[in-house]
Amino acid sequence: MSITIGIVGGTGYTGVELLRLLAAHPQAHLQVITSRSEAGMPVAALFPNLRGHVDIAFSAPDSKALSACDLVFFATPNGTAMQMVPELLEAGVKVIDLAADFRLHDAQLWEQWYAMPHACSHLLPEAVYGLPEIYRAEIAKARLVANPGCYPTAVQLGFLPLLEAGVIDTNNLIADAKSGVSGAGRKAEVATLLGEAGENFKAYKVDGHRHLPEIKQGLTEINKAPVALTFVSHLVPMIRGIHATLYAKLNTDLSQQALQKLFEDRYQNERFVDVLPAGTTPETRSVRGNNWCRLAVYRPQGADTVVVLSVIDNLVKGAAGQAVQNMNILFGLAEETGLNTIALLP
Amino acid sequence: MSITIGIVGGTGYTGVELLRLLAAHPQAHLQVITSRSEAGMPVAALFPNLRGHVDIAFSAPDSKALSACDLVFFATPNGTAMQMVPELLEAGVKVIDLAADFRLHDAQLWEQWYAMPHACSHLLPEAVYGLPEIYRAEIAKARLVANPGCYPTAVQLGFLPLLEAGVIDTNNLIADAKSGVSGAGRKAEVATLLGEAGENFKAYKVDGHRHLPEIKQGLTEINKAPVALTFVSHLVPMIRGIHATLYAKLNTDLSQQALQKLFEDRYQNERFVDVLPAGTTPETRSVRGNNWCRLAVYRPQGADTVVVLSVIDNLVKGAAGQAVQNMNILFGLAEETGLNTIALLP
Amino acid sequence: MSITIGIVGGTGYTGVELLRLLAAHPQAHLQVITSRSEAGMPVAALFPNLRGHVDIAFSAPDSKALSACDLVFFATPNGTAMQMVPELLEAGVKVIDLAADFRLHDAQLWEQWYAMPHACSHLLPEAVYGLPEIYRAEIAKARLVANPGCYPTAVQLGFLPLLEAGVIDTNNLIADAKSGVSGAGRKAEVATLLGEAGENFKAYKVDGHRHLPEIKQGLTEINKAPVALTFVSHLVPMIRGIHATLYAKLNTDLSQQALQKLFEDRYQNERFVDVLPAGTTPETRSVRGNNWCRLAVYRPQGADTVVVLSVIDNLVKGAAGQAVQNMNILFGLAEETGLNTIALLP
Amino acid sequence: MSITIGIVGGTGYTGVELLRLLAAHPQAHLQVITSRSEAGMPVAALFPNLRGHVDIAFSAPDSKALSACDLVFFATPNGTAMQMVPELLEAGVKVIDLAADFRLHDAQLWEQWYAMPHACSHLLPEAVYGLPEIYRAEIAKARLVANPGCYPTAVQLGFLPLLEAGVIDTNNLIADAKSGVSGAGRKAEVATLLGEAGENFKAYKVDGHRHLPEIKQGLTEINKAPVALTFVSHLVPMIRGIHATLYAKLNTDLSQQALQKLFEDRYQNERFVDVLPAGTTPETRSVRGNNWCRLAVYRPQGADTVVVLSVIDNLVKGAAGQAVQNMNILFGLAEETGLNTIALLP
Repeated sequence: MSITIGIVGGTGYTGVELLRLLAAHPQAHLQVITSRSEAGMPVAALFPNLRGHVDIAFSAPDSKALSACDLVFFATPNGTAMQMVPELLEAGVKVIDLAADFRLHDAQLWEQWYAMPHACSHLLPEAVYGLPEIYRAEIAKARLVANPGCYPTAVQLGFLPLLEAGVIDTNNLIADAKSGVSGAGRKAEVATLLGEAGENFKAYKVDGHRHLPEIKQGLTEINKAPVALTFVSHLVPMIRGIHATLYAKLNTDLSQQALQKLFEDRYQNERFVDVLPAGTTPETRSVRGNNWCRLAVYRPQGADTVVVLSVIDNLVKGAAGQAVQNMNILFGLAEETGLNTIALLP
Repeated sequence: MSITIGIVGGTGYTGVELLRLLAAHPQAHLQVITSRSEAGMPVAALFPNLRGHVDIAFSAPDSKALSACDLVFFATPNGTAMQMVPELLEAGVKVIDLAADFRLHDAQLWEQWYAMPHACSHLLPEAVYGLPEIYRAEIAKARLVANPGCYPTAVQLGFLPLLEAGVIDTNNLIADAKSGVSGAGRKAEVATLLGEAGENFKAYKVDGHRHLPEIKQGLTEINKAPVALTFVSHLVPMIRGIHATLYAKLNTDLSQQALQKLFEDRYQNERFVDVLPAGTTPETRSVRGNNWCRLAVYRPQGADTVVVLSVIDNLVKGAAGQAVQNMNILFGLAEETGLNTIALLP
Repeated sequence: MSITIGIVGGTGYTGVELLRLLAAHPQAHLQVITSRSEAGMPVAALFPNLRGHVDIAFSAPDSKALSACDLVFFATPNGTAMQMVPELLEAGVKVIDLAADFRLHDAQLWEQWYAMPHACSHLLPEAVYGLPEIYRAEIAKARLVANPGCYPTAVQLGFLPLLEAGVIDTNNLIADAKSGVSGAGRKAEVATLLGEAGENFKAYKVDGHRHLPEIKQGLTEINKAPVALTFVSHLVPMIRGIHATLYAKLNTDLSQQALQKLFEDRYQNERFVDVLPAGTTPETRSVRGNNWCRLAVYRPQGADTVVVLSVIDNLVKGAAGQAVQNMNILFGLAEETGLNTIALLP
Repeated sequence: MSITIGIVGGTGYTGVELLRLLAAHPQAHLQVITSRSEAGMPVAALFPNLRGHVDIAFSAPDSKALSACDLVFFATPNGTAMQMVPELLEAGVKVIDLAADFRLHDAQLWEQWYAMPHACSHLLPEAVYGLPEIYRAEIAKARLVANPGCYPTAVQLGFLPLLEAGVIDTNNLIADAKSGVSGAGRKAEVATLLGEAGENFKAYKVDGHRHLPEIKQGLTEINKAPVALTFVSHLVPMIRGIHATLYAKLNTDLSQQALQKLFEDRYQNERFVDVLPAGTTPETRSVRGNNWCRLAVYRPQGADTVVVLSVIDNLVKGAAGQAVQNMNILFGLAEETGLNTIALLP
């Protein structure tokens, strides 16, 4: 099987990562990649790591060329995909949006956080949230997949076993999350210059990060009831990686061993979630460039607070890798096709 | 006034930072610096930044030379100061220990966390915990000052206004703390190689960091009752800086403005604590190389969780700078003497 | 004595460093700092490290306010100072330009490399090139000082003793120079994002960097005859620091010891040039945040190629620090006034 | 075909990289990996990125187990392989040594630079230097391959076209080389701590790096006559990557275009050498994690100095990747088998 693929956008970090993964995917055939700003430029001139692997050039946006694909990925800023998706779906093309346009079910909530009107809110009920560890069956049947955000992926996979088991107080969840700067994208901005973000650590958007409503929606669905969550994001002086440190109060007396087993059981059949041995801690570099989420669970000092550590590569399991995982599910391929790589360490 | 000073140790990061600060201090006269391993080596040969500023050499440990000083700093591994302090105190020398030997009041607790017998537990009641923002009056009269740990400084200064005001639930405190690698010292270890700690983020010692009992002791004293604290430490791929993100449940309905005022009022007369304007976030680089703690307080989304952000330079306010601040208090100098420098940014 | 000071520009890295140094200078009184884009914003809101040290705000450009100063620094992009300097000089104000407007004596050459017409080429003969180690006497009498570029400072100080002694073949000089990213300034650009410049090393502008004609002019003046120089600049994944590795062919058989003595003799009275002991290598961190240039000279394997290693902090000796040094000379102060700080290590 | 493989050593960076590459190689079957210090420890416990990919444990050195392999890689410190290689060759095993034991043809020279007697100098004439771009035919027939050093690979590939064409003065070659810290290995040493090597740039071993005789031997063979080379190595604050900046005097008037063509022609059939378009510069990140060498050639300002820029990943083309490339040649596989990956960017 060969899947003909179009990419809209693709000049950012999510885009180059998607290109890297698709170039190594045995069934993916990249047919068109559009970029208004870079039309005409060979992809490998912008991203020299792709020399010898990707030989097409960016082209101007062209709905006809995209409509001829089996699948179109949107690696665009928020608000772009929603302008083009209805036409593509109508043409029978499947769509995976790596931006946020279809992540929230509630159009009003979306408009409030993203500060623009939603162009096709009628598609929100149909869009499937692309977190395979929860919604695999729905993804398999979808036309339109909303690929999750990076923080939401790390946080939801960390809380998931605890929420499903009903063993924590859901009125007091804390997610202290840290991200490398590639999460901010490949945009010319002072705040993410090496001179500013290097040798520095800070929190940002403490009052409210756009991933907060997405995480709360996800945790609420898992919990089948609302949750109260405090989410603080931080910027780490490194390029790739997210580390979420999660805190919750146990409402039942689970031992460290029982917690460990809870996590191992929940994820035993998941190809891309790795529960580490008790007593070890996951490092972001252990998933650099690959699609794993690695988790550890602790009950420090035997007190009633459970701590979960969750790491992903924000550009892979937090973006392009999960998108390819969703593509594999959409097209009935083995879920790890093209994703069976080993993290680069050191 | 000239204060003759001895330093024991001084080949580590805390030591070189102390040397940098003392070299710029108008009243400090460094008379002797001892190091068993580096005896005979000029200090500036080990630390080239001190060329032209520090012209003495390391000498072998010599209690006579140290006894002739007004003040001796210990910048040694844990367990060294306690072997030499009694003799120095007897000789009328004042002592500031930058290690942990005199930080805990409870000798048994100390022995449990530091895994060795305490050599002079009789001095523990006399030792003053050198956090000037709380114990300034006691420090002024002390012979022996236990300079606080780096994490404990950042965490205690962040919780202090909330605990003193009694506005938070003290059964559920969370301190998610992040440190640059210089906190691990200048020891040859695989874990802090650039090849291991660079481009990487991880938690460590989740089960129990030695700073936990120190922080709990401090918070308990402020609170005048025990507190329950979860403390998780993380390693940041940078050299200097600590960022503590603190979470607590409000037990009374304080607005964001009221919280801001609470912090500003508490620290209005503190020379080295800076409460940032509401809505801004402290960056570790804003205190790089200087003795400030910068704080911000938030009540995200108006929920009942208060979030405090606290940054220090772990080697300055978290170690050598606070030690010099304590020296100034001990000798009746203006507290900012020799410490009135500006952080290096970028 | 109090020197009233104006700064034009000051929102970039050179500016914040100048502010840091002037705030600690006992005779400097900062009276006005102008910025078109940031007019009205307190300086310390843009640069939080200056909180508590600099309490004025940026103001709109205002030649009257600047004319009332004793000295005006230009920390502006190339091409700005030349528009305002004639009026200031006429008003009796002394000027130090940290940009390139007055560095080249030849207006045509300037216009070729900087791609704009020069607005006051009649001042070029009067402008003094502010490298104190060569032009100290001229600086003392100047009205207008052209503060040298960062690479030119490191390269000229490294070649100086060899050229003055006439011991190298001047037809074959090579300067392989490496800079931290702060040399590119605090501009929003993709190329200096942490995501691009972090964990990466590359050469840039191999065909011709603007500092090339400045360096050649300087070396030619020292040599009293033209020189042939190949200059290649590289970008290092760090914030501060320049390392120049210089290569030349000896035209006379000087031993390693003789070379060492040549350098030590030349710089024995220089406050800010430090010739390291034979066999050691300078590190950029050994000058981080201070005004030193540290040098080492080698004759590897006894062959006829001499190698000089030269490090500076590009923002200090390569920009703001040298500007303050020039100010001290202009106003008859001791040259190290306000500059006697110790590099931050680690 | 399945090649059974043994690895001696393998606890360092070269080892983990070799494991990563072999785990993805379709014909490689890792049978035994020995380490005296880590015997019994699962490989994936030491290197968490290998969890799920490598499931064997380190075992104690055992010549019987190694003798049963088709091929043994040595990823050991210098001086280890030479103790074991004769026995393995006798047993019919092919050997690739990633250390330096068999790189120099001259045993005396080796003993002088490596400061120990050579244990099997009789094998030096037989050992083939594993730089496929020059010695492919010899490698194909070899029993014992000396895998080149990292600097030597980058430098030789850069000078190769110029030397073969005889267009440069070979009495005055300069190689200014820069390496990330993983080149120093995964050893507990102060000098490569993040606190020491981070935010810092320095030269090292200016008087004589062990790679100097190896490079000179290689260049001499290419040149068919001795060459004079100055080689200065520098440490870059990053983990992976080597950038060599090479300088030579042209002895004939080749235009930039002719130089470009010379390089493109020489490498047109090389799978792992990429000559970049004129006017662009290679970045180390463009080869991060893969086996390419990317080159650019310049003639700055039309003067008679030619500048070559050469980048490799020191752990891949500079070590483990080139070793796998040599394995492919030894066993008649397509040279890119298992090496066809894309560099991780950003």
